Formats: sequence, structure tokens, C-alpha cells
Amino acid sequence: MKRTCLAVILAAGDSTRMKSSMSKVLHPVAGLPMIGHVMRAVASAGIADVALVLGRDAEAVAKAAETDEVGLRTFTQTQRLGTGHAVLAAREAIAQGFDDVLVTYGDAPLVTAGPFSAAREELAKGADVAVIGFRTDRPTGYGRLLVEGGELIAIREEKDATDEERKITWCNSGIMAINGRKALELLDRIGNRNAKGEYYLTDLVEIVRAAGGRAVAVDAPEAEMAGCNNRAELAVLERLWQERRRHELMLGGVTMIAPETVFLAFDTEIGQDAVIEPNVVFGPGVTIEGGAVIHAFSHIEGAHVSTGATVGPFARLRPGTDLAPRAKVGNFCEVKKAEIGEGAKVNHLTYIGDAVVGAHANIGAGTITCNYDGLNKHVTKIGAHAFIGSNSSLVAPVAVGDAAYVGSGSVITEDVPADALALGRARQEIKPERAKVIRQRAKAFKAATKNG
Amino acid sequence: MKRTCLAVILAAGDSTRMKSSMSKVLHPVAGLPMIGHVMRAVASAGIADVALVLGRDAEAVAKAAETDEVGLRTFTQTQRLGTGHAVLAAREAIAQGFDDVLVTYGDAPLVTAGPFSAAREELAKGADVAVIGFRTDRPTGYGRLLVEGGELIAIREEKDATDEERKITWCNSGIMAINGRKALELLDRIGNRNAKGEYYLTDLVEIVRAAGGRAVAVDAPEAEMAGCNNRAELAVLERLWQERRRHELMLGGVTMIAPETVFLAFDTEIGQDAVIEPNVVFGPGVTIEGGAVIHAFSHIEGAHVSTGATVGPFARLRPGTDLAPRAKVGNFCEVKKAEIGEGAKVNHLTYIGDAVVGAHANIGAGTITCNYDGLNKHVTKIGAHAFIGSNSSLVAPVAVGDAAYVGSGSVITEDVPADALALGRARQEIKPERAKVIRQRAKAFKAATKNG
Amino acid sequence: MKRTCLAVILAAGDSTRMKSSMSKVLHPVAGLPMIGHVMRAVASAGIADVALVLGRDAEAVAKAAETDEVGLRTFTQTQRLGTGHAVLAAREAIAQGFDDVLVTYGDAPLVTAGPFSAAREELAKGADVAVIGFRTDRPTGYGRLLVEGGELIAIREEKDATDEERKITWCNSGIMAINGRKALELLDRIGNRNAKGEYYLTDLVEIVRAAGGRAVAVDAPEAEMAGCNNRAELAVLERLWQERRRHELMLGGVTMIAPETVFLAFDTEIGQDAVIEPNVVFGPGVTIEGGAVIHAFSHIEGAHVSTGATVGPFARLRPGTDLAPRAKVGNFCEVKKAEIGEGAKVNHLTYIGDAVVGAHANIGAGTITCNYDGLNKHVTKIGAHAFIGSNSSLVAPVAVGDAAYVGSGSVITEDVPADALALGRARQEIKPERAKVIRQRAKAFKAATKNG
Repeated sequence: MKRTCLAVILAAGDSTRMKSSMSKVLHPVAGLPMIGHVMRAVASAGIADVALVLGRDAEAVAKAAETDEVGLRTFTQTQRLGTGHAVLAAREAIAQGFDDVLVTYGDAPLVTAGPFSAAREELAKGADVAVIGFRTDRPTGYGRLLVEGGELIAIREEKDATDEERKITWCNSGIMAINGRKALELLDRIGNRNAKGEYYLTDLVEIVRAAGGRAVAVDAPEAEMAGCNNRAELAVLERLWQERRRHELMLGGVTMIAPETVFLAFDTEIGQDAVIEPNVVFGPGVTIEGGAVIHAFSHIEGAHVSTGATVGPFARLRPGTDLAPRAKVGNFCEVKKAEIGEGAKVNHLTYIGDAVVGAHANIGAGTITCNYDGLNKHVTKIGAHAFIGSNSSLVAPVAVGDAAYVGSGSVITEDVPADALALGRARQEIKPERAKVIRQRAKAFKAATKNG
Repeated sequence: MKRTCLAVILAAGDSTRMKSSMSKVLHPVAGLPMIGHVMRAVASAGIADVALVLGRDAEAVAKAAETDEVGLRTFTQTQRLGTGHAVLAAREAIAQGFDDVLVTYGDAPLVTAGPFSAAREELAKGADVAVIGFRTDRPTGYGRLLVEGGELIAIREEKDATDEERKITWCNSGIMAINGRKALELLDRIGNRNAKGEYYLTDLVEIVRAAGGRAVAVDAPEAEMAGCNNRAELAVLERLWQERRRHELMLGGVTMIAPETVFLAFDTEIGQDAVIEPNVVFGPGVTIEGGAVIHAFSHIEGAHVSTGATVGPFARLRPGTDLAPRAKVGNFCEVKKAEIGEGAKVNHLTYIGDAVVGAHANIGAGTITCNYDGLNKHVTKIGAHAFIGSNSSLVAPVAVGDAAYVGSGSVITEDVPADALALGRARQEIKPERAKVIRQRAKAFKAATKNG
Repeated sequence: MKRTCLAVILAAGDSTRMKSSMSKVLHPVAGLPMIGHVMRAVASAGIADVALVLGRDAEAVAKAAETDEVGLRTFTQTQRLGTGHAVLAAREAIAQGFDDVLVTYGDAPLVTAGPFSAAREELAKGADVAVIGFRTDRPTGYGRLLVEGGELIAIREEKDATDEERKITWCNSGIMAINGRKALELLDRIGNRNAKGEYYLTDLVEIVRAAGGRAVAVDAPEAEMAGCNNRAELAVLERLWQERRRHELMLGGVTMIAPETVFLAFDTEIGQDAVIEPNVVFGPGVTIEGGAVIHAFSHIEGAHVSTGATVGPFARLRPGTDLAPRAKVGNFCEVKKAEIGEGAKVNHLTYIGDAVVGAHANIGAGTITCNYDGLNKHVTKIGAHAFIGSNSSLVAPVAVGDAAYVGSGSVITEDVPADALALGRARQEIKPERAKVIRQRAKAFKAATKNG
């Protein structure tokens, strides 16, 4: 489509029912603020300009909306006088003269490019306004789309509808595309002679028709149209988003044993033949290559997992983790800002942070990279084929050479050369019969503290 | 309501289909035995007296029902001759003369005060019996409420119903309020001339009408009426309870990304703007203040989490845990009977038990408070701004002073003064080329054990 | 049923929509490849002979189908010319002359013995073909069963159906039993004069009737009939399987607080009065005895848990784990190939592998059995009533005697006699005021690295 388009995104709502200390549109869905989803949809529809109408938390919302892909201007709606009034907060941008003006909402994060483009195509075909509708089994509360001979006659609010009109199941989403060359003129005709004294965008349909123009409705999937007025509805948005993305990934060849227990972020990518077991949570910035296995109870963010690698159960990969092919991170292990080499194993009860682990290294259970001195983070390097004995502490900055061996329970503070054995532990002493003494003391203490 | 009321709770059922070694009403929902839920609902309806009719596990059920809020007397139903007979096990209490007698069930834990009060209000308005009904899409199996001119004519059992009557979707919950002044007289008229030779409480409707009195039905939400005859139905009760409470919390301003994966206890309290990520399990006794964040895969019981504190992922807070504002307990950490000071961090693979951790202390990965000597528990005190190196063992009773520093891998058995450094570890030794020897031995062993 | 039966299992499909590097029938449901489920159902229906028709991954599928209970022959379908053609790939087996030939599908893993036997009973009563049907609210896309006077007249494909026929909700599962004595003759009459030029097994109905024989349909539960063409449908199969098995276990007296979060394997057995908390994943080979408690966030495979034992939360039991009565494995613990004695406690942050832990032993937090030398696994023995201090490393092969005591933080490399105390740790040193020096250095480093 060669036509120019300005998207006006209304994000000024008060959202008191959210009972939140921040604007509704900042609440995340799949780890991204709602306003971010709307910006992505607009960008993927090929719309180059956005006018963002802000109210509460204007600065934070504007920041969350920032993107390289779209030109963004912000406007403030100081008074709340209805959607028609809100759109006109962006008067200056609309006046610039686009072919199309698309009005959408910051709290409608599930809409994809499809409905936006469908509405704009109707403008290209000559309509002056194209309203996006959706069909639903539960129309109660929505405005109904009254259509005759292919034209949209009116949007009838629930309270004004006749019994017959209430049976209509095609409802108004509120999203619409307007002929950009006439937009200001049309919008300025919206009046506020109604019970609430507000300016309703939906009046445009009748205004367009009165002016001899053409209004139409286009259809969009109900699941994309969901909005959000409280946190229960926010949870519904999240569920709908998750269901959609899980389904896409499964159709692409990802196995999810229990998809309803897998929580994806907005940008999670998973390759074909990867297996995701139940109860896996992805934060932002994750790429799982095909053929990797993510076992149950894993928590992964900002990480790259290569083919043949396995994660979990009960593993946590934090940002900056990169698992090479066939690397393994097992139960009760945390990895942060670390490369784990090909075939290397970090199997049990281990913390690896700010580290490079060489190929085929074996990190024993209970190993800790002591990367923090209270102020700074330091790096640990572990060579290829190195063997780190269990319960070892590697005090960074420190390097263990290739094929070196660290004895169990050692505290390693100095570099270990390749092929060397490093030990840092006391010799074992045996005190015969002493366990009895310890037990007697413990019993005496118990008796004393109970009696005393 | 100034009227006095006795609640008769029937809890004598055999519940063989539960296939359980304990009485059905002892099975917990949201961590509280079902009978406890019923007692709480009765108390919150302002009912001051309860007659509990017991059969199996009488002593344990009576104990589980105990509460300071309600006067409780127990009665034993020795024979099982129907609900009418069961209520009369409490004859002595009923005879005492209350304005209202409310009959309800120990295995109906979801009923709230609302329906109880609605039924009693009908008595106040002159009805002699007020039956609580519910509307359902699946009435099969339930007795139907036959209503004419605002009066309840009869409760028709499924098997006796005409085809027309079976289409009725208003069903009998079994719960009813009876005029307390006439209750004994009415109950005594229930006969047992029926196929099973049992005394049915539902006969009261016709008995009241035959005596010229008024029977009515009041409506209650279907979701509150669910009972339980086997463990699959117990799971349904749990689900309904959880859905209700999650919804309440979300409407109150709590974010739950995936509410269906959050399991609350009967007394869990969570403040506005708290965020609960997927897969969080709450045991009894938890308060989460507003603005706290509970990350995925957390298990919390008997704990208080202050504003700005973060828990998890993969954290377990056990009873007696108190997190001060902005304290942090991270992955694979267990905290028990411990105060974690403001801004203190317990981030990785740590066990803190019977301890006080000062503000802004940093507990390194793998730290263990060794609080148990096999018989007694001892206390560990860690000062403000102290730094505990990774993989340290703090052998209680022991105290680490303010701003003290414990080296990684240390075993601390004696108090550490403020600002001191404590070390308890062996010096590192390097044995060059020795890793090769170890590998050769391992290979030889492998060969020997495989060949031999 | 004394009649002999050959089950012909069609497992040659290409399943491109699975987008998988392996045959569809190898994808697991409840931890068992789909083809394994079909083999188990056939065996439990008392069918002794199977002809498996293979295509892609023939060798692997044949291996996955192997079982001691059923005689198995494999055949290869080289061309894909429809179901009628596929069955005839097993011509040689069919020709052997069975009373019944049952045709079923490798990607229909939920069918139980019931429908198979019901169809065969119709053969015993004289039918020549008995087609298994199911009733559904969503018949679109399925062939409809046209029945008159108790006989199956035809199977009408969706595209050929009249509007009236499309209203029929009894659909063809594709599974059917055929008179084994006539099977080859009937199958050979299937032609391919249709749009796709394929041989359709469903034509048998009209062929049988044309030959004066009797075709019938038998009813089976819709939930058993689900098949699988992509990974979203695979997830549905898994869900249906899980729902069925959870329900069975609950009716048998197992408490599941949130059954939808419990994932069972095909062979998981759980006894009466066991409690399974939310978010538990079972791999293959698990037996949980009655009265055991599996806490939330547990992952269990290849393990036996005795009565009164408790597991989790956050515990992982790996293959070869055996918990004696009242043993306890707690949070962030991993146990592998180990016996945990009666009443023994492995409570926190511990790895026990290749070990025997005596009755009433207490394993402190952070204990690691160092069982691996990089090539071999070695055994650790811990005596009854032994006490292993926290953060200890037990370097196998090693034995700790009965009632012995290991000090916290010890590395134990030599056997510890009964009743002895073993220590392997350095003496604690205190360096007064040194923490200040460390902090100053860290600050200087921070400044230097920021500035430089």
C-alpha cells in the first residue's frame, strides 16, 4: 500500500479500575508494556507515523512506546471529553495531511497488522470511514454495527438499541480508519449533545453518511479485540496472547507437552523439533534453537540455547547466557552472563556467573563462581575438558586451565595451570567416639533449654 | 439482623467414595479443612451458635471446627437414617429455642454468608422454611424447586419428576433455614415411608404447607453450592475456591500473569500493585504487601513479604520468615524462621534458618546457616552490611558483626567482630600435571571394572 | 473371547504437518511413543497378533512397538495409495486366517481395549464389518455414519454429504473390525475410482452390503478417538490422556489439589491417600505408595516413594531412587540411584547420587556426594543415625559409619568409623578491621575500571 498513514493511539485513560500506581498501558503482556505491543502492530502494518495521545504517566508511556521503526509524536489530552476529543488532541499531526488516519488504543495490545490493513484497504476503495468490528457470542455491552447493503449505517450503543438490534452479534471494536484528507473536517463535526456531554468518535459514521460519504465495517477476530479495564481482564489478555503464540510455535514444529503451562515473552523464538516440557517460563530475549530440550520447571531470560543443548529441570538461565550445542545445565543451577561450551556440563546446584566454561568441561555439584566482591563483578574462566570438583568455590577473577582438575571442596583463589590438580581444603581428621560426646552435649542443651 | 440463629452443620457422612482414611470434611480446600470453611462462613454471617452433627472421626472433625467466633456444640448421629434424622441429632440444641435454625453441610465449603442471610431474611418476613436453590445448566440428578406465586410448592426429586419438571433448572442445594420456634415440631413430622426408609429434610416443604405455613426458595450462585463426594469433586471445589479468590485479589489491584497457576491459601493476603508471576504456591499464613514481586516458581508459607521486596524465582519461604522492604530472596534459596533486613540479599542456593540478617547484608551463593545439631536449633546473627562469601557455613549459635566480611568457602564457628575479615579455609595447593595422573587412574579403574 | 484376532496398525504416515525429524507415531504421549500406547491397548484387548504397517522411520517405529505381550510382524507400505492400500501391505499376515482383523492407527493413542472388543463382538454376532464411531458436537470434516435399522448403510464423507446428512453427529473414527475369514476378499474389492485415485477402507461398508453381508457401527467415547496431525493436536492428545488418568487416580483415592498441573507418565502408579500438590511432573517408572506426600514443584522419574515419605517442594528424584517409609527429601535436593532409609532426612540443597543412606540419618543442607571422577561413578554409604554436617563433600567411594558425625564444611575422603567425628576443614581465622581494607580495594577497583 503506497498510501501514507498516521496512527493515532489513544493512551490517556485514567484506568482507575486497574487500581494501579502506573498507567494501564504500561502494564506488560508477555513481558512488554501494552503500548509496546500496539507500536509493534502499527509498525508491522507498515504505518510510519504515530501520534500518541497521553494523559497519566505521559513521560513513561512515551518512553515505553519508543521504537526505531516508527516516527512518534506525543500529544497530551488534558481534559477527558470522550474519544472524539482525544483524537483531536493530535490535531497538529492529523492536519499534516496523511492519506489515512487510523485510530486505535493503547490498551488493545492483541490487534495485529491484519485488521489495520483491512480497514485502510476500504479507504483505498473509497470509503471515508472503515470501522473494525468483531463477531461475538456475548455482545452485551458493546455497540452494534448496523449494516445495510454493504454499508455501515450506524453504530448503535447498547442502551439505545432496540430488542432486535441487540440480537446483532457484530460489534464495534472502537478502532477505525478515516480518510486522512477529510479527517479534521469530519472530526470537528462531532458534537457533545448527549447525556454525558462527551464527544464520541462513533458519531463519525453518521457524520460521514450525512456528508454523502461511505462508511463501512470490516471484520476482525474477536480474540484480537480484547481490551483491559482491570487486572482480571489483563490476565485474560495475557492468556489470549499466550495461546496465540504457543499455537504458532507448535504449528511450526515445537513440541509443548502442556502448552498452557509454558509462558512465552513477546520475543521468544523457538526452533523446530525443540521440546518444551511443562512449566517453563521465558523472559524477554530468548532464542531456543531447534532440537534443544527445555525440561520442566525452567526459567529462562536473555539467553541463547543451541541445538542439542538441554536445560533443567529446575534451571535458571539469566541474561547473557549462551549455551553451545549439546551443553547441559541441570537442576538447581543458575547461569548468568556466561558462555557454556559445547558439551560442557553444569548439572547440579551450581552458580555460574560472569564466566566462560570451555567445551566438555564438567562442573561438579555445588560449584560456585564467586564473582562479586560486594561492589564489582569479576570473571571466571574454565578451560576445555576441565573438571571442577563438587562444592568448590572459584574466587574470581580466576582461571582454571584446560583439562585441569580441581579437588572437591576447594576454594580456588589463584589461577590453575592446564593439566594441573588444584586443592584447597583441609586434611580430614577422625576423632573416634566423639560423635557420642556431641550427642550428649546436644541432649544436655536440649534438656537445659527446655527446663530453663 | 437481631434474630438469634442456630446453624446445624451436618458432617456425619461416611464418604466412602472419597476412599480416604479420614472423614470427608477434614479434607482441605485452600489449606483449610472443609469444615473450617463452613465455620468461617457461618461466623461471617453473624450466626453465634453451631450444632455440629458428627459421625466418623468425630473428635478430629470437632477439633478442626473449633473457633473463637462461634459457640460450638457437637452431637453424634449414630445411625444413618437420612438428613431429617441427622438434623434431629441436634434436638437438644434446637429445643433451646432460636429464632432461626439454619441447616447446612460440612462438605459444602464454598457457601458464603450471603445465601445464609438471604434465607434467614425470608424467615424474618414470615416464611417457615426458606430453601436455598441454585440455577444450573446441568440439573440432572438434583431435586427441582417447584415454585408457584412466589411460594415453594415442593422439592421434586429427579426420579419422581415429570418430563416437564425435569426441564426446571432451579435446583435444591439442600441448605435451608427453618423457623426456629416451630423447627422441632416440623422436623418431628418428617416420616420415613419411602423406598429407602429414610427421613428426608426436603419433606419439610410439604409439611410446612400442610400446616398452613409458607415455604419459599431463595437464589444463590451455583458456584457456591458445589459439594464433594470423591476426590475429583474435591479438586473441583478447590478450583472454584481458587478462581473466586484470585478474581477478588486481581480486582483489588494485584497483578497475576497467569492466575490459574497461582495457588492461594484460605488466608493469603496480597496488597495492591503486588505482582505474582506464574506458578506460585501459597501455604497458610502469608501476607504480601503491595508493591512486592513474587517471581515464578515460588513456594511461600507463614511468611511476611514487605513492599518492594522480591522473592524467587525458585524460592521457598517457610514459616517465620519476615522480609523487610526491598529485601531479596532469590533462586534455590530457603528461608525459615528468619528476618531478612531492609535491602539485604539472599540471592542464590542458600539456606537461612533461625537467623537474623541485618539490613543491606549480602549473603553469597551457597551459604548455609548450620542451625541444627541433630537435636537443637541454634540462632545465627548477621550484621548490617555484612558480606558472607559464597559456599560459607555459619555454624550456629554464631554472630557475624556489622560490615564484617567472611571469605568464600569458610566454616565459621566463632563470632566475627564488626568490620573484621573471617576466613576458615585451607590454602590452595597446585600439583602440576597431576590431573593427567587422576585421569589415567580413572581410565584404568573404568577398564578394570568393565573387564573384571 | 476365544476368537483369534490380528490387529493391523497403520503407522506409515508422512506427517509433514508435524514438522518433525521423526515419524509422528514416535512422538510421546505421557512419556511413551504413540505407537506404544496403541500396542498396549491392543494387548490389553487380548489381541495376540499385530501387523504393523510402516513407512518413515520404519526401524525406529518397529523398535518402539516391541513388546513381550504381542506377536509383532512389520510390513512396509512403499506407496501411499490410501488406507485400503495400506492395510493390504499386511496381506501376508491377513492371509494367515484370523477370525477377526482389526484395523487401527498408530496416531490414535487414546483408544482403549473397550472399543476394540465392542467391534469384535459384533463380528462374533455375525457382522462382516464393524466400524467404530463416536458422537461429537463438532462433526465438521468427519465422515458421517449412516445407519438404518441397526445396520450401517454407508460412511458419507463430508464433501459428499447432503445438508441433512451433515447434521448427523455420529462420525467415523476410521477404526474397524473385519471378518477375518473374508477380509482379503473384501479388501481386494476396494477400488480407486475417485478424485484422488486412492483406495479407501471406508468403501468396505458398501462392499460388504453389496455382498449380502452385514455392516454395523459401534459407539466409542469421543475422547478416545482423537488423532494427531500437528503438534497442537499432539498437545490435545496429551491433555486428554492426562485428564483421563488423573481422574482415574482421584477416583481411586489420590488427592490432587490442582490436577491440571500434575503430569503423569503412562505407567505412574499412586496409592490411596497419597497427596499430590500442584505442579508435579512424573517421568516413567514411578510408584508412589498410599499416604506419601508429594509437595509442589517436584520432578520424579524412575523412583519408588514409600508410605509416609514426603518429597519436595522443589525436589528431584531421578531413576533408581527408593525412599523408605517416612523418609524425607526436601527443597532443592536431587537424588539419583540411591536408597534413603526409613525416616532419613535429606532436607535442603543436597545431591545424593549412587548412595545408600541409613535409617534416620540426617543429611545437612548443601551436602554433596562426589560420586563422579570424570569417568566413573562411585558409591557413598552413610550409616543409620549418621549426621552429616552442612556443606560437606563426601568423596566416593567412601563410607560413613552408623551414628557417626561429620562436621560442617568437611571434605570426607576416607571412611568414617561408627560413632566417630570426622572433620576436614581449616581453623577459623579472624583479621580485625580487614573488611574495611577489602572494601576500600573494591571501591578503588570500581573507580579504576569505571574511569579507565
